[in-house]
Amino acid sequence: MKSTIITIGDEILIGQILDTNSRYISQALNRIGVVVTERTSIGDSAEQIVSTLDRALAQSDVVIITGGLGPTKDDITKHTLARYYNSELVYNEQVGSFVEQLLARRGIAFTELNRGQAMVPQCCTVLHNAHGTAPGMWFERDGKVVVSLPGVPFEMRHLIDDSVVPMLAERFELKAIVHRTMITSGIPESILAERIATWEDNLPDVLHLAYLPAPNVVRLRLSAYEVDGQSVRRMIDDEFDKLKGIIPEAIVGFEDATVEQLVHRWMRENGKTLSVAESCTGGAIAAKFTAMAGASVYFNAGVVSYSNEAKRDILGVNMDDIVRYGAVSETVAIQMAEGVRRAGQSDYAVSTTGIAGPTGGSAEKPVGTVWIGVATPKGSFAVLKNCGTDRSQIIDRATAYAIKLLYDNL
Amino acid sequence: MKSTIITIGDEILIGQILDTNSRYISQALNRIGVVVTERTSIGDSAEQIVSTLDRALAQSDVVIITGGLGPTKDDITKHTLARYYNSELVYNEQVGSFVEQLLARRGIAFTELNRGQAMVPQCCTVLHNAHGTAPGMWFERDGKVVVSLPGVPFEMRHLIDDSVVPMLAERFELKAIVHRTMITSGIPESILAERIATWEDNLPDVLHLAYLPAPNVVRLRLSAYEVDGQSVRRMIDDEFDKLKGIIPEAIVGFEDATVEQLVHRWMRENGKTLSVAESCTGGAIAAKFTAMAGASVYFNAGVVSYSNEAKRDILGVNMDDIVRYGAVSETVAIQMAEGVRRAGQSDYAVSTTGIAGPTGGSAEKPVGTVWIGVATPKGSFAVLKNCGTDRSQIIDRATAYAIKLLYDNL
Repeated sequence: MKSTIITIGDEILIGQILDTNSRYISQALNRIGVVVTERTSIGDSAEQIVSTLDRALAQSDVVIITGGLGPTKDDITKHTLARYYNSELVYNEQVGSFVEQLLARRGIAFTELNRGQAMVPQCCTVLHNAHGTAPGMWFERDGKVVVSLPGVPFEMRHLIDDSVVPMLAERFELKAIVHRTMITSGIPESILAERIATWEDNLPDVLHLAYLPAPNVVRLRLSAYEVDGQSVRRMIDDEFDKLKGIIPEAIVGFEDATVEQLVHRWMRENGKTLSVAESCTGGAIAAKFTAMAGASVYFNAGVVSYSNEAKRDILGVNMDDIVRYGAVSETVAIQMAEGVRRAGQSDYAVSTTGIAGPTGGSAEKPVGTVWIGVATPKGSFAVLKNCGTDRSQIIDRATAYAIKLLYDNL
Repeated sequence: MKSTIITIGDEILIGQILDTNSRYISQALNRIGVVVTERTSIGDSAEQIVSTLDRALAQSDVVIITGGLGPTKDDITKHTLARYYNSELVYNEQVGSFVEQLLARRGIAFTELNRGQAMVPQCCTVLHNAHGTAPGMWFERDGKVVVSLPGVPFEMRHLIDDSVVPMLAERFELKAIVHRTMITSGIPESILAERIATWEDNLPDVLHLAYLPAPNVVRLRLSAYEVDGQSVRRMIDDEFDKLKGIIPEAIVGFEDATVEQLVHRWMRENGKTLSVAESCTGGAIAAKFTAMAGASVYFNAGVVSYSNEAKRDILGVNMDDIVRYGAVSETVAIQMAEGVRRAGQSDYAVSTTGIAGPTGGSAEKPVGTVWIGVATPKGSFAVLKNCGTDRSQIIDRATAYAIKLLYDNL
């Protein structure tokens, strides 16, 4: 079962908004065994909607459309779909009275434009949108399904979960899609590929291997499309077991558990606490941990000590050492980690101090130089890393290295 | 001048990663006057790459492709492009020696796979990738340009900014694309549309109006494609001036820069300094500021005071007040802001303390309750905000509210 996702809206094409809907829908379709063949974003143009729909229906059985369902003149998806299906727009009483109530609860008058939102193509099945004024619509012709959903992410997500996914699962006989991802760390992608080349060449045909490199991490994903889920999951387990014998030192974890998730789990399971002191990563490490629900159990404190005075006053770093060795130095990284471990009264601490650029580098300490400090109940130390040349890259890599170094020393 | 953006990678189609490249490229092309007609994401399939490229070249003059340039077998973009252009892959000495140096700096051996990354189609112009191992490639046939870039976001960004944008601007005679967005608040979309209907009907043909609704905000964007920039910008100013007369109470401002960019600029221009104290936002505010080059001039310190002890020990919050009023309270928010303003020796400070969930809420203080504190040379205060129901949404909204509240009080 193949599908195409179409997102409609000039605001996507000009880059005013980030299209997160496509990703959400992709994940939902993959979970129930619907393969996403293509995702495409087009403007609010009737001609473009029609030609894209023609193409999508030629290559797939299911088409999910989001966007262009607002009450104003720039939104034309519904009218275009009505013409596409030679269907008249009719007033839907249920939608109309729901929208009227919804607006009344928010103290908003029901206008002619809102009335227009309750007009739907006669041939479609209306999908109730409990969170907004534009209903979802399900069209079917020649055994192929087209679903039109509002572009507001929150409304779209509820319609996908509550209506589209169960309806597709009932309407079609779906096989399984299986993805499993192993996380490796410490071996660069090209070296890793050589070490596992024989294993890769001998993979069963049904399994597809993908390399997903990120700072200091390479994820290996095995995917199988439209298969018997149970037997393929066993097959993947077997293949990953073989890998454990080939690169035992590099395997960090499975699925999409990130290294911060592994630290998070370890801290919670072992009842230990964590604090972080950041200079060049500027809060990115703290943000990674605190983004996870339940971090408050173990995450005591983060300090973004950008200025030297903050390093001294908040973390107790020795100002003489800063002057003698520089803020980007082994001793300062160690003192930062020890300082925040003390200030945050925690068992573990990690620190970063480096040059994120674009300015501030020197011959001796070029942009990208980062010292990472770790303080544990057993003692403290620091490691020097070159984290690249671009500011956002340096922040990302230093964040990843720091979390990995911490994890390795738990 | 029309363009199509193609992102290649199964990881996009299955929803494993969010495609942020398309947005960045869309913005860059719009800035130089290249209209983006379509954005499409496809898998690592030669057949699909060829058919999508055929279609893209039929509908546009410029095609930008990202992804599928890694050293491993799952990446096939380069080989497919070589066949598409009937061009042989040849070893590029410059790329080869650069990759070798780049890897040597990171202490990584140069392997046969890396050598493969220096093989490029003979017919293309190589675009130097200063930040990674896969070069960009510029193809040209029948006056139409196809550019292939690596999918790693920061490598792609540098290639767009340093090579693709200047080369397109030189290669083609480009007209201007103008977008300007007015932010309104307090009038629901359907009511707003009725109030400005006459104005909308009388807009010059060259201007296109779009409504972009969000909770309590409707943004109105006027766009003009491939025009004389100067005269159209004046035209848009005139039209927005008229709107000021029609909905004077609803206009909040214009969207030209993010609020953190406005604060960044203000701090630098006025020689003032900033510190932040975060509880529920967990470092996200600090990370937003420190992501911007030059933040070290004014950003002194951030404290992520997740535990009550950290609030007391690092920020000097009164523990009796935490016990009496709770950590999520007006007085704690104010004391956090004042505490970090003092600890960071800075002119301004902002703080957050709230319940990010999913647990920890109560009837009186449900999940999403956030107090935001601001401390300035003139004094300090705090504001209560409800930031939603979902953890990441709450962190994002609280971050945005806090930066906005700070900006309003500079």
